[in-house]
Amino acid sequence: MTTRIAIDCMGGDHGPSVTVPAAIRFLAEHPAAHLVLVGQEEVLRPLLAARIDDPRLRLVHASEIVGMDESPALALRNKKDSSMRVAINLVKSGEADACVSAGNTGALMAISRFVLKMLPGIDRPAICAPLPTVNGHTHMLDLGANVDCAPEHLLQFGIMGAMLVAAMEHKERPTVGILNIGEEEIKGNEVVKAAAELLRGSDLNFIGNVEGDGIYKGEADVIVCDGFVGNVALKTSEGLAQMLASSLRSEFKRNWLTKLAALIAISVLNNFKRRFDHRRYNGAILLGLKGISVKSHGSADELSFGNAISRAYDAAENRVLERITGRLTQTSAAPLATVENV
Amino acid sequence: MTTRIAIDCMGGDHGPSVTVPAAIRFLAEHPAAHLVLVGQEEVLRPLLAARIDDPRLRLVHASEIVGMDESPALALRNKKDSSMRVAINLVKSGEADACVSAGNTGALMAISRFVLKMLPGIDRPAICAPLPTVNGHTHMLDLGANVDCAPEHLLQFGIMGAMLVAAMEHKERPTVGILNIGEEEIKGNEVVKAAAELLRGSDLNFIGNVEGDGIYKGEADVIVCDGFVGNVALKTSEGLAQMLASSLRSEFKRNWLTKLAALIAISVLNNFKRRFDHRRYNGAILLGLKGISVKSHGSADELSFGNAISRAYDAAENRVLERITGRLTQTSAAPLATVENV
Repeated sequence: MTTRIAIDCMGGDHGPSVTVPAAIRFLAEHPAAHLVLVGQEEVLRPLLAARIDDPRLRLVHASEIVGMDESPALALRNKKDSSMRVAINLVKSGEADACVSAGNTGALMAISRFVLKMLPGIDRPAICAPLPTVNGHTHMLDLGANVDCAPEHLLQFGIMGAMLVAAMEHKERPTVGILNIGEEEIKGNEVVKAAAELLRGSDLNFIGNVEGDGIYKGEADVIVCDGFVGNVALKTSEGLAQMLASSLRSEFKRNWLTKLAALIAISVLNNFKRRFDHRRYNGAILLGLKGISVKSHGSADELSFGNAISRAYDAAENRVLERITGRLTQTSAAPLATVENV
Repeated sequence: MTTRIAIDCMGGDHGPSVTVPAAIRFLAEHPAAHLVLVGQEEVLRPLLAARIDDPRLRLVHASEIVGMDESPALALRNKKDSSMRVAINLVKSGEADACVSAGNTGALMAISRFVLKMLPGIDRPAICAPLPTVNGHTHMLDLGANVDCAPEHLLQFGIMGAMLVAAMEHKERPTVGILNIGEEEIKGNEVVKAAAELLRGSDLNFIGNVEGDGIYKGEADVIVCDGFVGNVALKTSEGLAQMLASSLRSEFKRNWLTKLAALIAISVLNNFKRRFDHRRYNGAILLGLKGISVKSHGSADELSFGNAISRAYDAAENRVLERITGRLTQTSAAPLATVENV
């Protein structure tokens, strides 16, 4: 069966100038993949040039664009023909197996949820993305979709994250940890304590608390947290990495001697840079929906956006959705959680 | 007036082998400072050797030690003659102007609170420490003392943090931000939104939301958050920095060519390392108490512990406590916050 990815070509800080070349490159690197490019035809057509006749590429016109700072509620209500909405519609109708957008996160979340609907047994979507660790990477969720979570939601995140890793990385029983703080007196707030109990009682491979530094130590394959804490941890990491990188750069640019040193150390520095290149980690999956919707960083460049397309493609190819749904159905006899009572 | 710092010499992973040399070095570098070393006399005396006669140094015996993993409640109840407790008692009695410990955080918090009591108008102590930024540093609080906070507590943190920075860095109106997440739809949880309102209504120089990456961009002099989020942000940063440092090290150790490159780049790398050396940032102040209690990292080495002593000394010299108390008294006519109603 062919795997088709719909791409919101108009989203992101750079729009088609990044999304179209990334799509063309992706097709070249994935000979079995099909792409549906969504956006204003008059803008996309010239960028595609001769590629327009590629049988693995389809162009779908959408007249509107969701602005990066537009209110998600308004985008949902008023922009029925936006490239974002049309790309998501293609997933809903089965014409695509997943969609990717570098557009406004809140709008992508709201429209994905409205169009695709939630999986049975899941109350809220969660944003899940990989982060590098000393020995590979970990998946963390939620990274910003839900600011307040009940313990049951954190359990659902654990299940969805574990199924994602199981499907995409072929790990049968990925380890699941809960983000917490380590002080003796005050180990976590009430929600985290209760969520840990639920996770401990589930059939997941739950390893207990992971502190902030444990994320990068690779202590668990999946780390669950509420979206407020997850978003702060993610953005704090981005900020620190940026500061360190720019400081290292400026230290090496200080004078001709240090510039010479940089020249000599260039291969080392490039290896280092490549390993932790945030572009490699671009592409967060919105989990919990009846369809795969992937969010790229708004500022993504071609390489970075290409990785987001790859993530959507891998998720579709590896049947992440079926895996999560299967796990939820399996527990539907013994109900997953009593969220109604929360 | 002489400034005297009491040191819990038995606390931390390394105990007197680190705390005593750090104290001796501190005295050499601060000709006006006085120190009170607290701990088991039979252990400390040999380490001090001839220094024991230094008129700026006093030795106070304490027979017990609070274990690093000991329950704070039990340490508080049972270890009345611990080096930690006796050091804090010296602050209470006025024999010292501040105390420093690398011991168990929970116990230091519990005993400090019990012995010193809270300042009027402050409900909870908060852990405040500086973090490096692209253009200097910022102070963040709370870093782990309070897992759940009401909006009023975050306002109190803002006031205390601003007064700390005003006193220690001679900035008359330090900027204050609140840690938040940026998604349009979901800008923060209810507590953060309400706290932002309180901060906006106060006479602080409040600049609004700071996202995780804004911490290191130096967007505010003071950043307030609850202790759960603050602790996660701090430890996540520590973990990321450790991972990046060890990876850079191993890239440079890969083969003789890269080792040569390291040799040539050594001054650059050392500058870089020095600038972000976490030991420079050691020493978190427990704010909100009627006395200055400083927490050092448990794993601190001599240089690092010395910085924690310096932080306590600077806080005492700069009359941080008077500054905070003055600000609280000033607002006591128009009550600071109605925490009773929360």
